[in-house]
Amino acid sequence: MRVLIIGGGGFVGQKIAHRLAERGTLRGQTITHLALADLAEPAPMDAPFEVSVHASNIADRASVNALFEVKPDVIFHLAAIVSGQAEAEFDVGMMVNLMGSLNVFEAARALGTCPVLVFSSSCAVYGGEIPEQIEDWTQNNPQTSYGAQKAAAELFVTDYSRKGFFDGRGPRLPTVTIRPGKANAAASSFMSSIFREPLQGEAAICPVDPDYEVWYASPRVTVENLIRTAEVKAEDLGEQRCFAMPGKVASIGEMIECMRRVAGDEPVNRIVWEKDQRIIDIVSGWRPLINPQKALKLGLVTDGTFEDNVRYFLEDDIRR
Amino acid sequence: MRVLIIGGGGFVGQKIAHRLAERGTLRGQTITHLALADLAEPAPMDAPFEVSVHASNIADRASVNALFEVKPDVIFHLAAIVSGQAEAEFDVGMMVNLMGSLNVFEAARALGTCPVLVFSSSCAVYGGEIPEQIEDWTQNNPQTSYGAQKAAAELFVTDYSRKGFFDGRGPRLPTVTIRPGKANAAASSFMSSIFREPLQGEAAICPVDPDYEVWYASPRVTVENLIRTAEVKAEDLGEQRCFAMPGKVASIGEMIECMRRVAGDEPVNRIVWEKDQRIIDIVSGWRPLINPQKALKLGLVTDGTFEDNVRYFLEDDIRR
Repeated sequence: MRVLIIGGGGFVGQKIAHRLAERGTLRGQTITHLALADLAEPAPMDAPFEVSVHASNIADRASVNALFEVKPDVIFHLAAIVSGQAEAEFDVGMMVNLMGSLNVFEAARALGTCPVLVFSSSCAVYGGEIPEQIEDWTQNNPQTSYGAQKAAAELFVTDYSRKGFFDGRGPRLPTVTIRPGKANAAASSFMSSIFREPLQGEAAICPVDPDYEVWYASPRVTVENLIRTAEVKAEDLGEQRCFAMPGKVASIGEMIECMRRVAGDEPVNRIVWEKDQRIIDIVSGWRPLINPQKALKLGLVTDGTFEDNVRYFLEDDIRR
Repeated sequence: MRVLIIGGGGFVGQKIAHRLAERGTLRGQTITHLALADLAEPAPMDAPFEVSVHASNIADRASVNALFEVKPDVIFHLAAIVSGQAEAEFDVGMMVNLMGSLNVFEAARALGTCPVLVFSSSCAVYGGEIPEQIEDWTQNNPQTSYGAQKAAAELFVTDYSRKGFFDGRGPRLPTVTIRPGKANAAASSFMSSIFREPLQGEAAICPVDPDYEVWYASPRVTVENLIRTAEVKAEDLGEQRCFAMPGKVASIGEMIECMRRVAGDEPVNRIVWEKDQRIIDIVSGWRPLINPQKALKLGLVTDGTFEDNVRYFLEDDIRR
């Protein structure tokens, strides 16, 4: 079993890699090789199997083709230009999120072995003219370029799978919080930073009102669900390879109260409330009421309350 | 008012061109120039405005850019690889229906004038894991490569419009019947040929059972609705630029009885029943129960019974 993680230098990719190192198996087979690829070559890691690291740009077809010489049986395609940057730099978003994904899909197809391909889509595909309650059959009418690019790539995950070019799966990730590391250009970045920075003794700006509702999942559950998605049997996936990954709904205010219950008043008092219209314009188009029936039937799992998310951060990710 | 029809040599493009020549205006303005473009240079035509004809390949960015030197105010983008060919020749479908459409979208954006762009999408975007009754908010889970390519292009019609790059509209055409001319590689081709050929004194093969249901529109109503779509005010289009064009539902058997009422037994007796599994596999994934509420609110119109479709063919299109 040979595994390739594109976006393997990012925090989700790194967590998948470390979880695979703990497990040693995927889809019931012993992992013999893990390839980690990202724009900048990821750091090597210890594992009970061979690990190779690769600098690769998915926007460059030749670079992707060279990467696929590792001949993966399972591919996690996590690489993307995040929402805020894709909105500000439209052409870069198209080149990476659409064309880059198509380069990955074509390289997977060219293997000729119908590999498993897990494409990390996003709940940003939801928005626009849809009912408040989102079901598995609700249309994707995204109101950001990031969402449109993800939704378009999803259509090809399903179509390439239907054609037998690869065995694709496209879970739509909730907002992952509390993310470790630093703030990034994602419009959702504050949904981690207003917890992470205060828990690490620093101030952070909250650009939205406390009643803003988030559809979220912890990093632990997200990684578990990405691995479970890779392990689902092809015949259980039906005619639609892309579906909402389970999440929870809470308002920013409720999430902050969870942090208070776990970590006291001090971190809460480090949050600075300062509205940012550019961020509000993007995230107010996202939709929190999602019923992930298909994912639950496929065996994906859900977080408990946001108190767990705070505890996971303190256990797994806090900067020491 | 300068108009460009891409796919202007095809039967829908030709009918739009002749209707525009009759009207002389579009969006309340006098038409001064009509450019007809297709893979093969369309024939010149008489009109009360200047007409230019162009050989252009939308899969070739430079060819598209050269075409846009006509500086259109309104673009009808009708060019496509049809369903049967896109299924048999996957790469050709991707190159024309996806990449070609993106070339057109980029050229429209490069004008810098936010032109109106009418993209002919298709009811082939419906299928898969959706309820039987299709609403405006039902997901696009197409079960053909043609449908996937159209659905992906639709996402960019909406996103380019949201960004102000052009003023896009993407009506999803029902099966257009009775089409004039010859059978083509569309899986739906028989839905015209089993009427057209018998009405012209020839035999035709029906590859499906008589209870197969079709979501259809006449050429007259389709052309009327494409022109109405171009004339809708941008502010009435909302957050989703793509929507089902009105159609009617009937079984093949019911449609044949309509032909009998208008034209007698003789044409009906020329239909040869011979199942074709390749065609059944494609068209059985299409869905006939579509509620085109948004289009009706925008002022698009619907056919009467299929008897009208037969009469329109006899009046407008029968080979003499």
